[in-house]
Amino acid sequence: MPDEPAFQDLYPDDVARCFGCGRLNPHGHRIRSFWDGEESVCSFTPEPYHTAIPGFVYGGLIASLIDCHSTGTAAAAAARAEGRALDSNPPFRYVTASLHVDYLRPTPLGPPLTVRGRVKEIRGRKVVVEATLSALGEVCARGEVVAVRLPDTFRPRAGDVSAP
Amino acid sequence: MPDEPAFQDLYPDDVARCFGCGRLNPHGHRIRSFWDGEESVCSFTPEPYHTAIPGFVYGGLIASLIDCHSTGTAAAAAARAEGRALDSNPPFRYVTASLHVDYLRPTPLGPPLTVRGRVKEIRGRKVVVEATLSALGEVCARGEVVAVRLPDTFRPRAGDVSAP
Repeated sequence: MPDEPAFQDLYPDDVARCFGCGRLNPHGHRIRSFWDGEESVCSFTPEPYHTAIPGFVYGGLIASLIDCHSTGTAAAAAARAEGRALDSNPPFRYVTASLHVDYLRPTPLGPPLTVRGRVKEIRGRKVVVEATLSALGEVCARGEVVAVRLPDTFRPRAGDVSAP
Repeated sequence: MPDEPAFQDLYPDDVARCFGCGRLNPHGHRIRSFWDGEESVCSFTPEPYHTAIPGFVYGGLIASLIDCHSTGTAAAAAARAEGRALDSNPPFRYVTASLHVDYLRPTPLGPPLTVRGRVKEIRGRKVVVEATLSALGEVCARGEVVAVRLPDTFRPRAGDVSAP
């Protein structure tokens, strides 16, 4: 893991509770994404119970990893494009407008999974991210996420039921 | 819940360990799907920690529910089309070739979610299922799943790490 903050480490506390990527959600996956040149990268090792057909990774987890890694990539790319820090104000936080995943082959359950993202388009408040998910060096799934920036006026709902 | 077996109750044991829909995965969602006329239906109440932005349901869970409900619908539809029982042999078990989800509006976290599926196409070993996910009577997401039937010769991997 790089010796630097992950994209998700820099989300404001009140939007850092996502089950997939919120560092403040103790029940969740807490994925962490970083730049690797022009690509973003995230490593995640599933639990043994994250199974689909026994021996292979659950497709819903694959979709979740692609989703959260891509919205994180969208936030980091927008910050870079605006020339300011990811943790500056107003905050960069993206949600998913659409998610597409092609499952190319069964993903073996056991080894770490690598998700790599690349920005396909960035325009206004929308970022389109292409992603791959690999195991043992082989691409097992490809995804595309259309991410949209939360309005600056957005506030999480009162009565936050996700607090630890 | 209808007083009848769910689609997933009729999966053979060795392919009933999926994190999303396997009745034998004690860590998973164990969703249950039923016919309701020409549509299939599934109800699921998220846990408080299944959050995205606080107050709203995690998109990865929404994708997972649409995915597993749709592969279940594919199996049930194939059985119906062949005029035999879902738990007859060779078994009907579908995996996901592609998954698409459009998130139409934030899904409130708290109330039960309803996933409804409808077969769009059934041809050979492929079934295309369209799905909606609703909360409080309002459609919050739409999905489409291309499901492909497992080869009859498929056997789960030795060393099943998902066993409870």
